[in-house]
Amino acid sequence: MRVEVINTGTELLLGQVTNTHLGFLAQSLFSLGLRVERQVTVPDGLAIAEAFEEAMARADLILVTGGLGPTSDDITREAVAEAFGKKLIFHQEILDGIAAKFAERKFVMNELQRSQAMVHEGGVVLQNKFGTAPGLIVEKGKNVAILLPGPPNELRPMWENEALPWLKKRFADQLTLGHEITLRILGMGETRVQILVEDEVKALGPVEVGYCARPGEVDLRLIAPDQALVEKAAALARAKVGDLIYTEGGETMEQTVVRLARVARKTVATADSCTGGLVANRITNVSHSSEIFRYGWVTYANEAKMTELGVPAELLEKHGAVSEEVAKAMAEGALRGSGADIAVAVTGIAGPTGGTPEKPVGLVYFGLAKKTGATQVLQKNLSPQRETFKYMASQIALDLVRRALV
Amino acid sequence: MRVEVINTGTELLLGQVTNTHLGFLAQSLFSLGLRVERQVTVPDGLAIAEAFEEAMARADLILVTGGLGPTSDDITREAVAEAFGKKLIFHQEILDGIAAKFAERKFVMNELQRSQAMVHEGGVVLQNKFGTAPGLIVEKGKNVAILLPGPPNELRPMWENEALPWLKKRFADQLTLGHEITLRILGMGETRVQILVEDEVKALGPVEVGYCARPGEVDLRLIAPDQALVEKAAALARAKVGDLIYTEGGETMEQTVVRLARVARKTVATADSCTGGLVANRITNVSHSSEIFRYGWVTYANEAKMTELGVPAELLEKHGAVSEEVAKAMAEGALRGSGADIAVAVTGIAGPTGGTPEKPVGLVYFGLAKKTGATQVLQKNLSPQRETFKYMASQIALDLVRRALV
Repeated sequence: MRVEVINTGTELLLGQVTNTHLGFLAQSLFSLGLRVERQVTVPDGLAIAEAFEEAMARADLILVTGGLGPTSDDITREAVAEAFGKKLIFHQEILDGIAAKFAERKFVMNELQRSQAMVHEGGVVLQNKFGTAPGLIVEKGKNVAILLPGPPNELRPMWENEALPWLKKRFADQLTLGHEITLRILGMGETRVQILVEDEVKALGPVEVGYCARPGEVDLRLIAPDQALVEKAAALARAKVGDLIYTEGGETMEQTVVRLARVARKTVATADSCTGGLVANRITNVSHSSEIFRYGWVTYANEAKMTELGVPAELLEKHGAVSEEVAKAMAEGALRGSGADIAVAVTGIAGPTGGTPEKPVGLVYFGLAKKTGATQVLQKNLSPQRETFKYMASQIALDLVRRALV
Repeated sequence: MRVEVINTGTELLLGQVTNTHLGFLAQSLFSLGLRVERQVTVPDGLAIAEAFEEAMARADLILVTGGLGPTSDDITREAVAEAFGKKLIFHQEILDGIAAKFAERKFVMNELQRSQAMVHEGGVVLQNKFGTAPGLIVEKGKNVAILLPGPPNELRPMWENEALPWLKKRFADQLTLGHEITLRILGMGETRVQILVEDEVKALGPVEVGYCARPGEVDLRLIAPDQALVEKAAALARAKVGDLIYTEGGETMEQTVVRLARVARKTVATADSCTGGLVANRITNVSHSSEIFRYGWVTYANEAKMTELGVPAELLEKHGAVSEEVAKAMAEGALRGSGADIAVAVTGIAGPTGGTPEKPVGLVYFGLAKKTGATQVLQKNLSPQRETFKYMASQIALDLVRRALV
């Protein structure tokens, strides 16, 4: 079954709103073994008609979001009626439902609302519990169109509670479960992963291999028609790439760290210098992080490193703030000051200024102190772009904590 | 000039990555008087060729993102060469540049990288300072194709620094280089701004008014054919909206705070509790923030508030950590501990758990202490969604600092 998505909305093409429908629908469809093969965004108005007819020629299932409202530029319903050659029939009970919602909110209904009670002949009506425009399912020959309202808080429950169950029932014989494993890898480039893994994985059978690169890391996505084959492919990739794989199943690094720390009942403290609070911020983006995170310091100035973390002035003078020795002393100071089980420290040169030939922008040292065992220190040269530098440094700092928890 | 955008990337169609390129490019094009008329997402691989040929028939300017990397599914370069009937020519100096980047980071270059040094005959090369794949501009007849790399940290500077200036120069006669002023407003909704401002601004002359809403704030964008008119419109909007306008000219809140503090030669300290380091992190995203930011604390636990900021245990027991009294004590403790001129503190309930009927998820208190003058305290009820809550709270905290600096 070939699937396409059409998103309507001038605000999407003006950059005022980010399209979150595609990701939501794609992830949901993937669980049915379906993949979106193409997605199109068109402005409100007539363009929907052309885009819909093009999609009809290529796809079986077409999901359309938006354009179901009452105003003159909302013409999704009419465009699909025209393309499918189906009449639109007025349904009094839908208008009564809309009228009841208006009454509840003490708004006055106007005549424009009537268009939302029009349904294609033979069409299925999808209830909208959180707005006025109902969704619609219309079939013609091999084509199925599912029309969904634009607001995410209306679309999402309608999809989950109505459209998805309908699809599963109607096409029970055609849907298969997609089998996917995504490995997230820190510290190896996309091409190196490809050279190491791709040929051997493909020799196992019909495995699709995909890559998604981000600064300093890459997702390796393996898809196969059955679970045994995708597991085999993942096992092979794990053997090749080793412990650079920091997570599977779509977890972020910070989610992994918080999950592992909760399981191990360990607490974590942070001493951010060049990362400026980003390590702490990422940890505290995760729900329930308060169970494992209690203390963090942002010691941007040398004086802060001394007064808050007890880094000796001599170390700073002799080696400079961006040094192995200071990273170690910061981590140990954070461990001591917080009473945590693990403390991580980051000190580096985020730029754009402050670099020297010996210590260029992008140079960074990490310290990892634990209640038991020696303090580790690590040096890296990262991107000279400030925000990318901070992100990459925070990722490595979190990975050090992850490794200490494994 | 008709514009279309093609985004390539299987990860977009699988819902693993959200498309932020469209919004970024659309907002930038808008300032040239250009609008994206259609956007298509296709998976990595052959589909780009078909999508590109379709776009050629409709559009003049085609922006393509992604598919410029070195791996086998990156074929944007080849698809455009084919559609335009242009040869790809190897450029040794591009490969040398890539090799130098690999050497700098002490990585080993492999043979797959060679594909990134191929350029269409007559094509313009766009430098990629933050990655390996250069961007490309290729023209044929009425069609112009601009090919940009997929990673946002590579695409954005390349667009701003290379592609956009090229476009302005090449099509100076066709682009209506409108004069634009964008006012960023914190603490007033989109419709309220519209009611206050739009009719009166439009009565001044041919001013285009646009809105871009984010949680708790809205951008008001004014565009006019001449500078005098847009200035007049902005003056009117300023008079109506007042000091809720926190910045103009596209500066972020944190850039405004750092700029104002540098000018005033004041230092700022932060005490993040529920914001978990986000206030400090946003300040330190700005270049030269080390001149004004030296100390920050992330006092997530009550104990950390006591030992690091000297918040009295009695206050925490009597009023709870999320209270006016504790916000005040945190700000004053941060001021004392850092010796800074201004200290801001945030304590609240980010959720999803920890709320009570009296202190629900989303409740937050802010403290602002200064070397001279009384400490201010502010209470807000924000979004119950964790990351939105943290962002909104950090925005209000930074705005308090901004107001103290004005």
